[in-house]
Amino acid sequence: MSKKVAVLVVNPVNGYGLFQYLETFENGIGYNTFAVSDSPHIKTNSGIALTADDVISNLKGHEDEFDALVFSCGDAIPTFQQHANEPYNITLLDVIKTFAEKEKMLIGHCAAGLLFEKAGVTKGKTIAIHPMAKPAIQTGNATDQPYEVDGNFYTAQTEHNLAQLMPHLLKALKN
Amino acid sequence: MSKKVAVLVVNPVNGYGLFQYLETFENGIGYNTFAVSDSPHIKTNSGIALTADDVISNLKGHEDEFDALVFSCGDAIPTFQQHANEPYNITLLDVIKTFAEKEKMLIGHCAAGLLFEKAGVTKGKTIAIHPMAKPAIQTGNATDQPYEVDGNFYTAQTEHNLAQLMPHLLKALKN
Repeated sequence: MSKKVAVLVVNPVNGYGLFQYLETFENGIGYNTFAVSDSPHIKTNSGIALTADDVISNLKGHEDEFDALVFSCGDAIPTFQQHANEPYNITLLDVIKTFAEKEKMLIGHCAAGLLFEKAGVTKGKTIAIHPMAKPAIQTGNATDQPYEVDGNFYTAQTEHNLAQLMPHLLKALKN
Repeated sequence: MSKKVAVLVVNPVNGYGLFQYLETFENGIGYNTFAVSDSPHIKTNSGIALTADDVISNLKGHEDEFDALVFSCGDAIPTFQQHANEPYNITLLDVIKTFAEKEKMLIGHCAAGLLFEKAGVTKGKTIAIHPMAKPAIQTGNATDQPYEVDGNFYTAQTEHNLAQLMPHLLKALKN
């Protein structure tokens, strides 16, 4: 039986990255999208309005309903620090931590590894990450590879490398 | 000076394809999105609600404001024939025809070439197209290549081949 995925969608989100996951998951993988925001009505980097299934506050406490977490990166992240105290961003780090503690799959591209690091779950984990975010990784082992698979961590350097990660991801999600 | 693009978004649209264009165009290319629908509120193949800038009926008569047309394919197209008489689909073919007559750039992936064929503008043009749609191309020259550039026609076989077409497209749009 295939696994079920919680897809976290930041605001604004890189649509190219987000829809590589979602169109791939149409291939038999169940998922729900959760806006990392107070509202499910968010925007892409390009300014296109889109609506997620739900908001991240409604994922908290329901982590056991999912087997894997996708962190879908976007233009929200370069300014993350200015909004780090927003309840939705505090919940974001809590939810990542819970998925990691339960050894569920953690998946993401671009600065996903940075958020995994901030959540305190990257110790001993090898991750691919955007070159600009790489210096911030102190606990995890950040590489210059297009993608990395290390145990339950699946990361790609940017949205342009996701296509290379996807076959590995799909295989794991279908098991 | 870079060119301005009218992006036609079918309903439902393949988000992976659509956002490859839009995220790439963030790189200095102006564009507007037009839903091929009565309403700008449409969906992706994955069922995510999104809102285009406008609807296609408001592009008709304003073709001269744009230098290029993108046809962003999606799950609307396998059932196109059942909805061929909807005003938005009649306008779709009219708009494609006008862009072609004015020798503006025609761009698209998957079944885009099929719509260009239906609009009657593919004579003598070499186009890449989804293998399932290839037999329907009688006037144009459909190939099995991942992408084709032929004069003002830029086509990719599927959304998975768009990344290969994109550098050629970007170069032409920036001229």
